[in-house]
Amino acid sequence: MGKVTMMLAIALVILHLVSRCRGGVTSSYRRKLEASVDMPLNSDVFRRPPGYNAPEQVHITQGDYVGRGVIVSWVTPVEPGSDLVLYGPASNKSKYQAHARLTTYKFGNYTSGYIHHCKLKNLDYNTLYYYRVGIGNSSREFSFTTPPEVGPDVPYTFGIIGDLGQTFDSNQTLGHYASNELAKALLFVGDLSYADHYPLHDNRRWDSWGRFVERVAAYQPWILTAGNHEIDTVPEIHETTPFKPYIHRYHAPFKASGSTSPLWYSIKRASAHIIVLSSYSAYAKYTPQYEWLQNEFTKVNRSETPWLIVLVHSPWYNSNNYHYMEGETMRVIFESWFVQNKVDLVFSGHVHAYERSERISNIAYNITNKECTPIPDPSAPVYITIGDGGNIEGLANNFTEPQPNYSAYREASFGHATLEIKNRTHAYYSWHRNSDGIKEVGDSAWIYNRYWRPDE
Amino acid sequence: MGKVTMMLAIALVILHLVSRCRGGVTSSYRRKLEASVDMPLNSDVFRRPPGYNAPEQVHITQGDYVGRGVIVSWVTPVEPGSDLVLYGPASNKSKYQAHARLTTYKFGNYTSGYIHHCKLKNLDYNTLYYYRVGIGNSSREFSFTTPPEVGPDVPYTFGIIGDLGQTFDSNQTLGHYASNELAKALLFVGDLSYADHYPLHDNRRWDSWGRFVERVAAYQPWILTAGNHEIDTVPEIHETTPFKPYIHRYHAPFKASGSTSPLWYSIKRASAHIIVLSSYSAYAKYTPQYEWLQNEFTKVNRSETPWLIVLVHSPWYNSNNYHYMEGETMRVIFESWFVQNKVDLVFSGHVHAYERSERISNIAYNITNKECTPIPDPSAPVYITIGDGGNIEGLANNFTEPQPNYSAYREASFGHATLEIKNRTHAYYSWHRNSDGIKEVGDSAWIYNRYWRPDE
Repeated sequence: MGKVTMMLAIALVILHLVSRCRGGVTSSYRRKLEASVDMPLNSDVFRRPPGYNAPEQVHITQGDYVGRGVIVSWVTPVEPGSDLVLYGPASNKSKYQAHARLTTYKFGNYTSGYIHHCKLKNLDYNTLYYYRVGIGNSSREFSFTTPPEVGPDVPYTFGIIGDLGQTFDSNQTLGHYASNELAKALLFVGDLSYADHYPLHDNRRWDSWGRFVERVAAYQPWILTAGNHEIDTVPEIHETTPFKPYIHRYHAPFKASGSTSPLWYSIKRASAHIIVLSSYSAYAKYTPQYEWLQNEFTKVNRSETPWLIVLVHSPWYNSNNYHYMEGETMRVIFESWFVQNKVDLVFSGHVHAYERSERISNIAYNITNKECTPIPDPSAPVYITIGDGGNIEGLANNFTEPQPNYSAYREASFGHATLEIKNRTHAYYSWHRNSDGIKEVGDSAWIYNRYWRPDE
Repeated sequence: MGKVTMMLAIALVILHLVSRCRGGVTSSYRRKLEASVDMPLNSDVFRRPPGYNAPEQVHITQGDYVGRGVIVSWVTPVEPGSDLVLYGPASNKSKYQAHARLTTYKFGNYTSGYIHHCKLKNLDYNTLYYYRVGIGNSSREFSFTTPPEVGPDVPYTFGIIGDLGQTFDSNQTLGHYASNELAKALLFVGDLSYADHYPLHDNRRWDSWGRFVERVAAYQPWILTAGNHEIDTVPEIHETTPFKPYIHRYHAPFKASGSTSPLWYSIKRASAHIIVLSSYSAYAKYTPQYEWLQNEFTKVNRSETPWLIVLVHSPWYNSNNYHYMEGETMRVIFESWFVQNKVDLVFSGHVHAYERSERISNIAYNITNKECTPIPDPSAPVYITIGDGGNIEGLANNFTEPQPNYSAYREASFGHATLEIKNRTHAYYSWHRNSDGIKEVGDSAWIYNRYWRPDE
């Protein structure tokens, strides 16, 4: 990144114009992009850790319903190696130990490394833990901080990233996110590695992605949503089981929320109840995901977790010509529940641009009444599309015109977001675009809780 | 069935009035119903065949893409027994033999019998075959007739049944269907046994249903669609794999049409190309079902198979308050393909009543244009809802008022239908309601092929 480019970028930032259409903003900011190509496999960001059979692709996620559990996952490349995780507070880092379960899978001619998943249970809240995987010279130490106990006024900050991939832009996004000291856990709205961009879905790109994100994912939990690039079916080589690499590599505490699939589940963390849905599983009435979600909404207690947040890959409100209306098939069946239950925020990815909606709903339609356009609705969520992590497919720079009334702000830039929950009523949301070499706030808004501040 | 009841029924038939609303007909015919209860397990229709370990629940389906294959399936209750099927023409009934594959499954405390599936290949077209399963005194002989070779003007008659179940009404429907000498193959639009009506989905009701329908299903192929009552998940006993009993018991030649799941596939039979879809599997863009269907439409050759027919359990156009708009989630994603490809007929079940639509479509909607009501469209299919086989849940006798313009005829009676394909341009469709003890035509229409007679 040269100085000239940097200067140009800063100049562009200063000069950037926004066009206003019926209240919505379409940002005209355009950054000189990195080439939308994946970093080469011999890139330093994909470097294997030193030592024989050293654990790699280390990542963690929440391991239970309330935040006292962590799932630690890693891959050993040569042999299974040790299944032990040693963990404990700074005063005694090896105080506890837990055993991992081992899995492997084949995908065409590819055979995975030895994938370990280990659940650490009954952790103390709000505590820094160190953990170690592997043995001897090859062992590696990381750390995480557990969240505060679930409660209505617990401040907590989440990061949000979608459609990350492993390009040079992805690296910028991850770097910008890592430099953010506020975010304590990441809400990832699907499309992880883009391994399926390669012939026969070269699964080595799942491994490289695991090594690429380790610098963040080993230290704070990533709450993952499955995107279309996780489906990974290749009928011509008889790989017909959807989500096979994803499900082997990334675990979720789905049983804790009564789910029967790792593709949809929920967790409570600090003051938030987070529901993860699967755009690419069945969700018609009577299906397991539908029945689970219907029941899940009855379990939400806004006096305990005021903030109700949904993650789903394919957006329901998107005014980009890319993937336009793809989310309709799920919207028409679930949107009324979201309004009835006053969901605060819905984060989606899929579209490689950024967009924030107004609070609108479109649930009055009865086939014959023509009431099928979004209308302002104070009980509706804000829908945020943030599939702009920086993947190999590039930006989606083709918005529908005019900007529809449901769209509050939209911009075709890469970036990430943060949601700073302050208390039961207020949260500060901001989207950070990747400028050249720096991050800057492209969009921000105070979010008023739908349950505790429904009229604001 | 007493004489008085019969007389009353006939009188009702003569007197029955139809109310006309904006062109559509809502029949006021109401038959005295049998109790909507399942026939008891010791009922004669569920009788086991005599002999030790005698094959039971014998049924057949098309076994290849073009009609030269048959899958013969049966269950042996005590031990696996013979895997052989002996088959041949009348002149030499044991001329050929084929070996079955064996499967079993557990469901909670239930263990299935030994389920055999045997593919008979390379049969001659338009030929009566006899086949025998089991050995010695326990062996049983059945027969089927293969369809004529696929071709554009081959007459052929299909029967259509949905939501059959195993009540006394189901028995009437099946009896009426069996007395129909025209229909050579059955299009079954989902919801077979309703075993899931029983605590823990008592799978003995899958067995009894298999014995109940054998008198028809062993002699002509049933082209099956999965309905919501095939999902069969019971998380409390850890039965979380959707469609487990159905997939073990009922096979389909899905690989022949390039599908990766028995829940969606296609066959060609005589002059028809029949596409089977799954309402309760994933169908969003990028999912296997979506990608298969997109590709399948490119393979349809209307010069070879003029008639393009789709089977899907949950109807897209239904003006009954039961299950109203449940099909929207699939309609919004697939309907434009059906119109572009000029599908002739879509058969659905799910709603326990009968309804035939006008040729209408609803594909212009773009979120903001309000163009979201069905409009007449000569390229659109006729949608027929025929979930009126007679199951334990009873009739859906509560239509929306006024009758919407997309509804041509609707009536809350049990029954079945036949589709008599005459040639590439004409087919005669009729729906046969169950009157008391007799069947009678409740609705009928000439169907003009959308490809060869698009303007009629």
